[in-house]
Amino acid sequence: MGELIAAMGIIRKVFDKYAGEEGDKETLTKKELSKLLREQIGEEFSSKEVDEFFKGLNQDGDSVISYQEYVVFVATLALMLE
Amino acid sequence: MGELIAAMGIIRKVFDKYAGEEGDKETLTKKELSKLLREQIGEEFSSKEVDEFFKGLNQDGDSVISYQEYVVFVATLALMLE
Repeated sequence: MGELIAAMGIIRKVFDKYAGEEGDKETLTKKELSKLLREQIGEEFSSKEVDEFFKGLNQDGDSVISYQEYVVFVATLALMLE
Repeated sequence: MGELIAAMGIIRKVFDKYAGEEGDKETLTKKELSKLLREQIGEEFSSKEVDEFFKGLNQDGDSVISYQEYVVFVATLALMLE
């Protein structure tokens, strides 16, 4: 298995790890997203910043982040590594 | 550093590895994309399939795949792991 597929597995595993903490295991709540940002990006975001992040990712306007919305976040992150 | 950032590093490293083989080191030629697909996805794609793949990724219609276009491919791949 190539490194790329391994990286895909990590991306999925990270989502599942945080999405599984509370509520629906298939979506990220704001609290789970905040923890993911803190632990995975290693930065302390203010609750205002997390709110903005959450709103930006939450394309369909429900109160959670789906895996698809999370992948958009990951792609944006990858583009920042330009 | 979180696993997510490590996965981003792998995504970038894989791009650089193949983009660096011929021509411009910052873009993928069709030949480089074909090799990436074969080695990273582990499937033998026909040249017709690679052509279609290439056309689909090549948003700006030039003759190479940029890092941004590659990230769209990677995000699509990640979504297939739904």
